[in-house]
Amino acid sequence: MTKVNKNFENLVPNYLFADIAKKTNEFIKANPDKKLIRLGIGDVTLPLAPVVVEAMKKGCEELGVKETFKGYPDYEGYEFLRTAISDYYKSFGVNVSADEILVNDGAKSDAGNIGDIFSEDNVILVTDPVYPVYVDSNIMAGRKILYADGTEENNFCAMPNPDVKADIIYLCSPNNPTGACLNKEQLKAWVDYANENNALIIYDAAYEAFISEDDIPRSIMEIEGARTCAIEMCSLSKTAGFTGTRCGYTVIPKELELDGTNIYKLWYRRLSTKFNGVSYPVQCAAAAVFSEEGQKQTRENIAYYKENAKIIAETMDELGIKYTGGINSPYIWLKCPNNMGSWEFFDYLLNNIYVVGTPGEGFGKNGAGWFRLTSFGDRENTIEAMNRLKGLMKK
Amino acid sequence: MTKVNKNFENLVPNYLFADIAKKTNEFIKANPDKKLIRLGIGDVTLPLAPVVVEAMKKGCEELGVKETFKGYPDYEGYEFLRTAISDYYKSFGVNVSADEILVNDGAKSDAGNIGDIFSEDNVILVTDPVYPVYVDSNIMAGRKILYADGTEENNFCAMPNPDVKADIIYLCSPNNPTGACLNKEQLKAWVDYANENNALIIYDAAYEAFISEDDIPRSIMEIEGARTCAIEMCSLSKTAGFTGTRCGYTVIPKELELDGTNIYKLWYRRLSTKFNGVSYPVQCAAAAVFSEEGQKQTRENIAYYKENAKIIAETMDELGIKYTGGINSPYIWLKCPNNMGSWEFFDYLLNNIYVVGTPGEGFGKNGAGWFRLTSFGDRENTIEAMNRLKGLMKK
Repeated sequence: MTKVNKNFENLVPNYLFADIAKKTNEFIKANPDKKLIRLGIGDVTLPLAPVVVEAMKKGCEELGVKETFKGYPDYEGYEFLRTAISDYYKSFGVNVSADEILVNDGAKSDAGNIGDIFSEDNVILVTDPVYPVYVDSNIMAGRKILYADGTEENNFCAMPNPDVKADIIYLCSPNNPTGACLNKEQLKAWVDYANENNALIIYDAAYEAFISEDDIPRSIMEIEGARTCAIEMCSLSKTAGFTGTRCGYTVIPKELELDGTNIYKLWYRRLSTKFNGVSYPVQCAAAAVFSEEGQKQTRENIAYYKENAKIIAETMDELGIKYTGGINSPYIWLKCPNNMGSWEFFDYLLNNIYVVGTPGEGFGKNGAGWFRLTSFGDRENTIEAMNRLKGLMKK
Repeated sequence: MTKVNKNFENLVPNYLFADIAKKTNEFIKANPDKKLIRLGIGDVTLPLAPVVVEAMKKGCEELGVKETFKGYPDYEGYEFLRTAISDYYKSFGVNVSADEILVNDGAKSDAGNIGDIFSEDNVILVTDPVYPVYVDSNIMAGRKILYADGTEENNFCAMPNPDVKADIIYLCSPNNPTGACLNKEQLKAWVDYANENNALIIYDAAYEAFISEDDIPRSIMEIEGARTCAIEMCSLSKTAGFTGTRCGYTVIPKELELDGTNIYKLWYRRLSTKFNGVSYPVQCAAAAVFSEEGQKQTRENIAYYKENAKIIAETMDELGIKYTGGINSPYIWLKCPNNMGSWEFFDYLLNNIYVVGTPGEGFGKNGAGWFRLTSFGDRENTIEAMNRLKGLMKK
């Protein structure tokens, strides 16, 4: 008799986005004349850069000609792309060689699947608020999960507690959902903790392209000691608008050895069994992102989102609302004014100024009373939403 | 301290293709003047059909325009593609609804990952010779694996043994590597066995497009009783030359319930945690495969490979060499003549007629003394290789 994985029963159903959609749709139905503005989504809206589209189309054309046709790709990605990513790291002073990079169909796949190579009796540490993938993928494997609290007091930068013994630690900086960033000193403290405990840090750098301040590391590999305790996952989703194109990469230092085992080789064994590489035209598109022209064009899109974030952050400053993010991140994580709860504030914005955001408690217990706005909308709509908010709060 | 998954230590290193490459390269180095012909690869060589390339390029262009830009795709794939696949099933008389289809980045990913939703104490049954993914992915999870022997006596169609109790069964028909096909009666016997044992069949239909004989089912869903015990995995890799484009699909009947759990919902929960959908242009390309013009163009490629297979099979007939496959499959699985071993025959062909094939023992113990040739090469080279073989064997 087939037996299912009973760990799935321990997953907490997260109806956050379904509930948001339901409330929003009900409002639209009851108020067809009101102009709704959505600042809740975590998806990008600007199109791919022209040079990226051209490279992807060229890749498609090559697949249509016998002489340039490509069959099964390398599991770890084409060398031309891995070299481009390695050069990208060099551009901000980090040494990661092309043979330490493994290309994937999006960071979520690797973040979800990386647990395959680790024992089920590792103790996991995540920060709360948290991107749900880290939690759910480990619940599915039956692992024990500890939480490090991100709170108003620590500006949502949870720091290691030497008395807590964890084996695998997930860090995301700039953070989803809080936009908070670990500075070099803070990240060094985590690296030291991991090395002292022979633990692994899985570092999610999906939002690194939004970093503009010098003291915020763009890669954990900048930090001394990281190569003996950390792997890094990054994505082109937010860097270059690849949410629908699907490409990311994982960095595993060649010398990283845990439990007497080389981690690159272990992960490669997993890849070669359960994965067959990334679509050739997608890899061509990804490589174009890292070309000189590609960087210029995609940076324009990031600058657009960052300006939106600035407009939101300045509105919070003006209104005296406490927040994290907004500078090195597309997210603004704000404390609901007047001690409102997350959902209370959601309803308040929806019903009064027709603006949709994301209640913070969907990301963990420390999100209660907090709220996420994103900078991925239109400029015009972002400005209008903030003007409406000012009007509402200054009443 | 991080602990790795020790089950990986139980994986048997398979150096088959590495060993083939090594021997082949040594031969080339020693014999630069000899024209080598490769009939060992399982990868396609013909380019994508023109209508497929055009659709993929159009998808790329849409991503470059704000009004038609696409962000995160649905986890299960776009409805336009799932409907196209559902209609494709209808074209050969099988009812699979669009909401029973889940699009992926290649059947190997789902075949490797499906185990996530099942307990580790299921007993697995695979046929031997076997596609290594079924075995290795279950060794990684620490599951017990039983083998059903495919042999010369049963024409490499292993049948269920009522005394063997398995919980999850992997079947691949047309088979990789043997090219052998289960007919409707044989597949019905497996379905009955699964239903009687409350077991699950994971049916790999990756080569269904090569089937031309009426009695060979193209989908397990043709078989009465399959919807209560089977899921099906298929791929565009061999159907439409998508090995480098990356797209496949899994079919899970909506009513399939095992261990009191709806399997579609369980798998969807896994998908939404560890996957973010397939690249939009790739889904556009896949949908084009199932258009009228797409079917016409891709069928021409399949006809080309099938003619190659026929040329190889007729050569085997002429030489009195026993084989399976070659009719409803791109593979010809032949018994090494003169009681040669698999590697002995490999060396014999390489050194005498400069033809590279695949030693059968790389696919399991029952592959010893057998050899795989594929039809994915050039017509001209296939004919020349067979002429050389005739010359060699008739000496």
